[in-house]
Amino acid sequence: MEKKPQSSTEESSIFDKKVSRRNVLKTAGAGGVGMLIGASGIGGLLSLSDTTVTKGETIKDVIPFYGKHQAGITTETQNHLYFASLEVTAGSREELIQLFKDWTEAAAAMTEGKAVGDHSGNHFLPPKDTGEAAGLSPSNLTITFGVGPELFEKNGKDRFGLKGKKPKELKDLPKFPLDSLEDKWNGGDICIQACADDLQVSFHAIRNLVRIARGKAVIHWAQTGFQRTKQADSKKETPRNLFGFKDGTVNPNVQKETEMDQQVWIQSGDGADWLADGSYMVVRRVQMYIEVWDRSTLRDQENTFGRHRDSGAPLGHKNEFDKADYNKKDENGQPAIPTNAHMRLAHGDGKQQILRRAYSYADGMDPQTGSFDAGLLFICFQRNPEKQFIPMQQRLAKNDKLNEYTVHKGSAMFACLPGTQKGGYIGDTLFS
Amino acid sequence: MEKKPQSSTEESSIFDKKVSRRNVLKTAGAGGVGMLIGASGIGGLLSLSDTTVTKGETIKDVIPFYGKHQAGITTETQNHLYFASLEVTAGSREELIQLFKDWTEAAAAMTEGKAVGDHSGNHFLPPKDTGEAAGLSPSNLTITFGVGPELFEKNGKDRFGLKGKKPKELKDLPKFPLDSLEDKWNGGDICIQACADDLQVSFHAIRNLVRIARGKAVIHWAQTGFQRTKQADSKKETPRNLFGFKDGTVNPNVQKETEMDQQVWIQSGDGADWLADGSYMVVRRVQMYIEVWDRSTLRDQENTFGRHRDSGAPLGHKNEFDKADYNKKDENGQPAIPTNAHMRLAHGDGKQQILRRAYSYADGMDPQTGSFDAGLLFICFQRNPEKQFIPMQQRLAKNDKLNEYTVHKGSAMFACLPGTQKGGYIGDTLFS
Repeated sequence: MEKKPQSSTEESSIFDKKVSRRNVLKTAGAGGVGMLIGASGIGGLLSLSDTTVTKGETIKDVIPFYGKHQAGITTETQNHLYFASLEVTAGSREELIQLFKDWTEAAAAMTEGKAVGDHSGNHFLPPKDTGEAAGLSPSNLTITFGVGPELFEKNGKDRFGLKGKKPKELKDLPKFPLDSLEDKWNGGDICIQACADDLQVSFHAIRNLVRIARGKAVIHWAQTGFQRTKQADSKKETPRNLFGFKDGTVNPNVQKETEMDQQVWIQSGDGADWLADGSYMVVRRVQMYIEVWDRSTLRDQENTFGRHRDSGAPLGHKNEFDKADYNKKDENGQPAIPTNAHMRLAHGDGKQQILRRAYSYADGMDPQTGSFDAGLLFICFQRNPEKQFIPMQQRLAKNDKLNEYTVHKGSAMFACLPGTQKGGYIGDTLFS
Repeated sequence: MEKKPQSSTEESSIFDKKVSRRNVLKTAGAGGVGMLIGASGIGGLLSLSDTTVTKGETIKDVIPFYGKHQAGITTETQNHLYFASLEVTAGSREELIQLFKDWTEAAAAMTEGKAVGDHSGNHFLPPKDTGEAAGLSPSNLTITFGVGPELFEKNGKDRFGLKGKKPKELKDLPKFPLDSLEDKWNGGDICIQACADDLQVSFHAIRNLVRIARGKAVIHWAQTGFQRTKQADSKKETPRNLFGFKDGTVNPNVQKETEMDQQVWIQSGDGADWLADGSYMVVRRVQMYIEVWDRSTLRDQENTFGRHRDSGAPLGHKNEFDKADYNKKDENGQPAIPTNAHMRLAHGDGKQQILRRAYSYADGMDPQTGSFDAGLLFICFQRNPEKQFIPMQQRLAKNDKLNEYTVHKGSAMFACLPGTQKGGYIGDTLFS
């Protein structure tokens, strides 16, 4: 299976560079666990020996942790997600700073496939690393940290001397019509998003970071997620959601730095300079009534999204990436893309864009209904939620035909911190 | 990533045989979705063209549905599980038979990467297939059906004329000391185990089978599971559980037919001849207190399992697969493998074996404790639970040191039906 990770910035890319296999082995040895190298499917598997990797062979499943931006935002979506929202219980600013320093070190190690802490095997202490990812490849793990509004101020209290740094954009989302939010899926002081092509690797990351936080933070809520697996033929396709429709066709192009600077990355001068190169993350836990959906006709389903199911093309169009003509009429003189179709309302006047990075979830049965508890952990990134997600969601919450089939159960907003370079730590611009 | 599926019987194996790519494409076309072929990592990717596959190239991600035995029992464990326990609501034996016929047809199609039903796209009907797996590879999907005790008799009532066929082994497990079972994770009339290397493919399978059962069966409980992903270097290693230990080292050898006939497959003359070539499945939902575990010393952890964490070797031994010497003493004259160690108690006098096929689960946070709701969906197969799982578990439930760190929340037993050949249906020996 060929994997094609992509780094969020040119600065942080180690791909397509020559790498000494001896160095790779050294690195692995330092962590005490074998680091496996997933080579290109075409190039064949690397044999681990003491030679220099020849031109054209590349390391394919490590995504650099350090860089201008955090990874896991413009990174090509991995197959699995483990997402945790934490409540901070630390008693002081110093404890909180230490936590981010410890997290940075551990996260950087894990994204390289290394264990947390040393691995000397002192039998009279608990192991520093919990061990379940030993021997597993780095699996394109990214770990992305964000901070929520109440880290800055909670019930009027400036908990960690951060109140003055709170960006005005960082606050609870407004209540949207039809929201059915439950506290257990809402908010959080800090979020950690761990994405990887192996769920055991994602879980291991969150578990070890939560463990490092003992006495300083506790889990508020957590969610696993999955999406359509990258396929053996390496063809990149838009993933399908649990309604069977392609999801994310109109995402901005993560390859284009200027587009990302306009839409995703917070810029100096936007209001909170310490957040420059970070991004606002909106998370919504959207339960999908799949049994109800499954009883709807294909026509209803396609009218709901405004797209053809099989091709993903806008209604009345042929190909997934055709530019939608919202003035187009069908054979009855009605808009080909109905006025209450999800894609039309999301598009609006075309002025708002967000970078969607959602995962499906399946949590067994919903005991209230006897139906599947399944849906979407909607995650998006943007430079300014007030100009991007919020107006879009206001349109959708009022009129979207999709609302017949979904309910929003959870909501949170986090400011994803800027990246950091080796020697620094995630959050250093916030605390300095 | 090389995948090495293995079929449960020689009879049903299509691997390592010549396959016409034209036929593969035809098959895919019939289902209306592209079927991707994951070729050997060494051999490179197949290009889909009209030529005969040359010797040595093999189809790597379809596991045959039809055969003497059901797949998903002795099949090499895939990366993901979606497990559903169902309550039957069908009003008649005929409805139930029709359900198994419909399930057989749909399951056979899905394991080949095809959609359920035709795919003609009549806009005035709900689509027959829910669509989220369109374009995904078959992903080594296996679908395994089992029947629980109450399908034969419930509250003294012979629901479907099956009472006379109930095997005496098929009944609720005895209550074990320390069990903390919850109805919501217990029992079921029918189970469906869908394993695949892609969770979206597993989910799609269960969802579509539950949909086909509308009016005849409803979900009682459902659980997703994962395990250590097959690695890029194709080296087969024993997976690690969420305590970081290798799990399943002493499994019987699924490659040896005689061993499987002794330990796993029900034989003619065992009592219920209609079940010959089937197997009894025991399912236990075991919550793991990972935060408590993580505070234990490495010595405690190793003494708990009776194995070294890193190597998986029995304590006092060097390699994972060393035959454990239970008489060996440590430097203090104590048993190297403690008397209450999990592996010693599971081994007992060595007379019982089971085929373990467990998956880890991570269901977010346990609201009762604020800890991870994570653990093991323990699944095992055997020819006779009264001689295999039950005596083992009776020893473990009493004395296992692991009990300090785990609690059994769910329990079920199912008789996994024999396999069937094309033209037959899963359950035909039960109803004939």
